[in-house]
Parts: sequence; structure tokens; C-alpha cells
Amino acid sequence: MKSKKKVTFADIAAYTGFSKTTISRYFNDPDSLTLENQQKIADALVALDYKENKVGRILASGKTEFVGLIIPNLYLHYYSEMLNQILATYETYGYKFLVFAGSSKADVERKYIEELLAYNIEGMIILSGTIPSRELASYNVPVVGIEREDRYISSVNTDNYMGGVQAASLLRKSDCDIIIHVNANVPDTSPASGRIHGFVDTCEEYHLPYELVLTDLGDTFEENRERITRLVDEFEEKYPGKKKGIFMPNDTHANVLLNILFQRYGRLPDTYQIIGFDNSPISREAVIPLSTVGQQIPVIANEAMKLLSEQMEERKKRRPAPLKEPVHKVIPPILIRRDTTA
Amino acid sequence: MKSKKKVTFADIAAYTGFSKTTISRYFNDPDSLTLENQQKIADALVALDYKENKVGRILASGKTEFVGLIIPNLYLHYYSEMLNQILATYETYGYKFLVFAGSSKADVERKYIEELLAYNIEGMIILSGTIPSRELASYNVPVVGIEREDRYISSVNTDNYMGGVQAASLLRKSDCDIIIHVNANVPDTSPASGRIHGFVDTCEEYHLPYELVLTDLGDTFEENRERITRLVDEFEEKYPGKKKGIFMPNDTHANVLLNILFQRYGRLPDTYQIIGFDNSPISREAVIPLSTVGQQIPVIANEAMKLLSEQMEERKKRRPAPLKEPVHKVIPPILIRRDTTA
Repeated sequence: MKSKKKVTFADIAAYTGFSKTTISRYFNDPDSLTLENQQKIADALVALDYKENKVGRILASGKTEFVGLIIPNLYLHYYSEMLNQILATYETYGYKFLVFAGSSKADVERKYIEELLAYNIEGMIILSGTIPSRELASYNVPVVGIEREDRYISSVNTDNYMGGVQAASLLRKSDCDIIIHVNANVPDTSPASGRIHGFVDTCEEYHLPYELVLTDLGDTFEENRERITRLVDEFEEKYPGKKKGIFMPNDTHANVLLNILFQRYGRLPDTYQIIGFDNSPISREAVIPLSTVGQQIPVIANEAMKLLSEQMEERKKRRPAPLKEPVHKVIPPILIRRDTTA
Repeated sequence: MKSKKKVTFADIAAYTGFSKTTISRYFNDPDSLTLENQQKIADALVALDYKENKVGRILASGKTEFVGLIIPNLYLHYYSEMLNQILATYETYGYKFLVFAGSSKADVERKYIEELLAYNIEGMIILSGTIPSRELASYNVPVVGIEREDRYISSVNTDNYMGGVQAASLLRKSDCDIIIHVNANVPDTSPASGRIHGFVDTCEEYHLPYELVLTDLGDTFEENRERITRLVDEFEEKYPGKKKGIFMPNDTHANVLLNILFQRYGRLPDTYQIIGFDNSPISREAVIPLSTVGQQIPVIANEAMKLLSEQMEERKKRRPAPLKEPVHKVIPPILIRRDTTA
């Protein structure tokens, strides 16, 4: 086992013959030293096997390279895939992530944010919709929201309206007697509401018979299954023998619907077409591959970090020019036709 | 928008009439002040709306409350559920998590660990098996491993041997002609190898015909599906018409097998019994609920943090007594009978 005794500024000073102040300047303002002296100190660090202590640098520079990340849950496959992709941006941007799994309770999430701010995070990525964007903006730290209300903060979202258009158009082509969109009753300030508008506008444009089912499907798998089972019963009673095209709010819920039908019929009956949303892993891993309106999760994760890192880098300048208005990036969805639509 | 100008020790000193040194002692060694003076300063903090700057405290105390977490991937549902449960321990222990998604490359994971150490993390939880425990132990920071080689580090693992016994015993009761365990060719130093031994010992004890299929099923869903499809072809050729009981290495792979059979037969044929491992969410969300040897993921997450926090707290004492030997906690698995076994 190697000895891991910490090399201090005093050790480096003794080794090089410089003062401790000079060593400190090397770390915090290297350009104030001659190139020759910078080199001498750099050589000493190698010789002494110096391990950088970032906490010391942080205090000197105020820059922690921390990004706080609040995710509502890891139950929805969309979120665990988004987390995966955001963590992967470390290779490109070098920021480290302090991660909290949200609780849907504003008080608890506020406590998380206070913790994050106490650690001098440089920015936040917020997927949870619990705390209003106005409050998030007031923390005076760059924030990027993903798929949440974003009036006062920058954001990266899928073009949800286009997603609704894509879903309705695909179901239109598969000759359904009735087209149904199931979703939560999302407020107009949430990006997801765009899906509902895109769906409705397309149905009305083409005079397609449609129904909106805006209802809470619950927060756990057990609640989802129970409520979606009830929906299937209702659909079968209301539209017996009709061909039903169903646009679900996400792939996790589309998978629950697909499984209920497989359990009843041993296959996806010809009277059903299903399309999900997200292109999260479950859409491929389902009993038969699910058609879906794909969110470009790696693109969104990357654009969110790009937008955030630009703001974080700006704040490191001598005369930072903060954003005058929040920036909203919109990423097009990609329709993915698999085996649950014609 | 509230003004967020930072309140400094100098402001608190000016407000209370104490010296800055006294204010600093309040934060770093409060018991060195009288209760009355502690109260005066506490009142001033409220009056001034002081926000704690943890980076300052960290430098004073050396205690960051950070735990580094390295997870191999978030594709296996077991890992995303474990991450979820580990993050949830924040409510109990107060430690914050710096999270890296592992890369299975030792060089990259070493870089992650260097980053973590540079931030003075107080401990690490490692789920990735890439770096040998001997090296992890040499970093001189408390480490707890979960389901990985753990000779030189503390660990919390499921009793994998008992899991293998439970799986073979359940398949034995369902009157199979042949019992098959599919797994990676895990080395004996990995806890998962216990499953293979428990399975084999049980089959031999009861003279059950069995087969071990030790093979790499790949790292992505596409690879999994292709290789498990090939396995099904082989089983059908080798054991036509026989009743096959198959113990898969985890629920994610058990779900892939179940879906392949549903796609071929519209149901789980009577000639197949399937049991997974983990009790991860996919086992409930599968087309029919999967029987599984359940890992007690919340218990494991909690025990890992308990073990780690004991070691981290010990190091904060004046005369810490480090562990003489790594501690290995073993958590019993729970057999969960659902619809893929008799």
C-alpha cells in the first residue's frame, strides 16, 4: 500500500525554495508567476506526488464544478434514462452531479435546493415540476428545466405539440374508428400540454372521431395498473368491436396497457393500436416493441448541459453578461413505428 | 426578488459586537462559547437571513458530508432501483451523493475516483466491479461495496447461495424435466457466484437433472435479446416437449426470455417455468408478473449507508479506531412466487 500522507503547500514551498504565498499564487493566479517559476512548481508537484485538493481551490476560486440535479423519481423509465444521459455529459463538460430524487413535496425539494446552494453549486438542472420557475429563478444560480413549467428559467423541451401531431397522424393512417389520448390533466404552463393541443388540432383538422381522457393514473405501478385496467373496461363498454387507437402519456403507461391486453387476449387484438411517448428503454423491452413518439433523450441531456455550462462559464468572467431572458430550446420528437401500430 | 447579498462573518461580527474569531468558533466549535453567546449569534443569523456556506465549513472541519457513488449502468433495473434507494437514505443520514455512472473501464473509473477524492468525499459506495477491492481499500477512505468482489473492503450483499437454493427448490416443486441456470461465468470472488453453487448443490442433493449455461448475455437490450433468442432455440432443440425450469441471472433478462416466449406462443407455454433474480420493478411490470428471488434492495441500500456512516463518523472522533477487518453483511433473499412458476 502506497503511503498517502498529504502533500501540503508548506512541503511544496520547502522543496522549491519559494514562499507559501508563491505556491498559493501558482494555484489561484498562475499568470502572476514567470513561466520558468510555474515550471519549477509543476515539476515539484510531480516529484512530490501532489494530489490536488479541490476543496481548497473551490474556496479560493468560488467555483465548485458542481451541478445540482433534482429528478422527480426513477420509477418512470424516462427519468432513469435521462439521469443516465446527464451523468454521461461529465465526459464532455467535466461538471460533477449532486443528485437528489425529488419527493413531489415543495418543502422537501426546497430543503434539497438549500443543501445544494450551501455547497456553492454552479448551476441546477431541474426535472421536477414541484417548485415554480419564478422561485427557481430567484436563487440567482443558472437553472435549466427539462419538461417542466419554465416561464422564468431556461429550458430544453421536446416539441410536444409536434409529438401530439405525429401520434394523431399515425393513428389516423391506421384506420381507427376512434382515437383516444390518455394524459394527466396537465396545466397549460407545462410543456406536456402541447401534446394534447397537437393531438386535438390534428383530429379536428381531419375530422377524426376522438376522445380526450385527462385523468391521474397514479404514482406507482400498482395504481397505474388498476386505473388503466379500469380504462380498458370503459373503452370496451363504450366502443365494443370498434378499432381504437390509443395515444398514452408515456411508454411506461403504454406498456401497462399493452400487458393488460396481452393478458386478456394473448396478443394485441386487431381492435387496438397503441402509441407511447418518450422512446424510453421499456418501449423496446415490452412484450412486443411499442410504437412511440421518441424524445431525443441524449440530445436533450446534452443541450441542457450546454445551455447550463454557457451560463456557468459566463459567470466566471470578470464582467459577466447574464442572460436577459430565459432561453428555451425545443428539440423535435422522432416518430418510431414499431409493432403496436399498423 | 429578495436581495441575496451574502452575509459574511464580518457582518455577523459587526451585528453582534463579537470578534470574527468568536463567530468562527460558533460554527466550528460552538461548545467553546457560553450558551448565552451561542444564542446571541443564533439570533443574529436569523435577523441577517444568514445562509450557511458549507464550503467554508468544509475547509474548517474537513467534513464534506459527500459520499461518492459509482454505479455500473442504469440499464439494469436493479441498479436504477438501488440508486433510488441509496439517494433516499439522505433523509436518514444527511449525506449527499456525487454520482458517476461507471464505464466498465478501470482507467475511466479511476479518474472518477480521483475526482471524488479531490472533493474530500468522506466515503464511497461502489456497485461497479471494475476496480479490485485491494485498490479501493488503498485509497484510505471508507468504502462499502454492493454485490461485487469485496475481499479487502466492507460490503453488503444478498445471500446469493441461499438465492440459488430457493430458485432450484421452487423449480424442483414444479416438476420440471430439466432445470437450467443461465448466468455469466462469474469468478468465485464475486458474490453472484454463490447463486451458481446454491443452485448446483440443491440439484445434486435432490438428484435433479440440471444444466448450467454460463455465458455472456451482452450489455445492451439488443444483445440480450439476440443471445437469449439463441438460447431458446437451443433449449427447444435439446429438450423438445420437456418441461424446462429456467433460473435467469436477473429480472431484466428473465423479462427478455418471457417476452420471446410470449411472442412465439401468445402465452407462457406449460413447458416453461421462469424465475428471475432481484425483484426489481420490471418483475412486476412484465407481461405476466415474474417469479423472482427478491433482493431486499431498500434493506441493502440502508445497511450499506449504515455501515459506511459508522465508519465515516468514527473518523471524525479525536482518536478514531478504524475497522481492523472489513465487515461483510449478508441480507437474506426473499422468494417471490408470481405467475411464471407453478
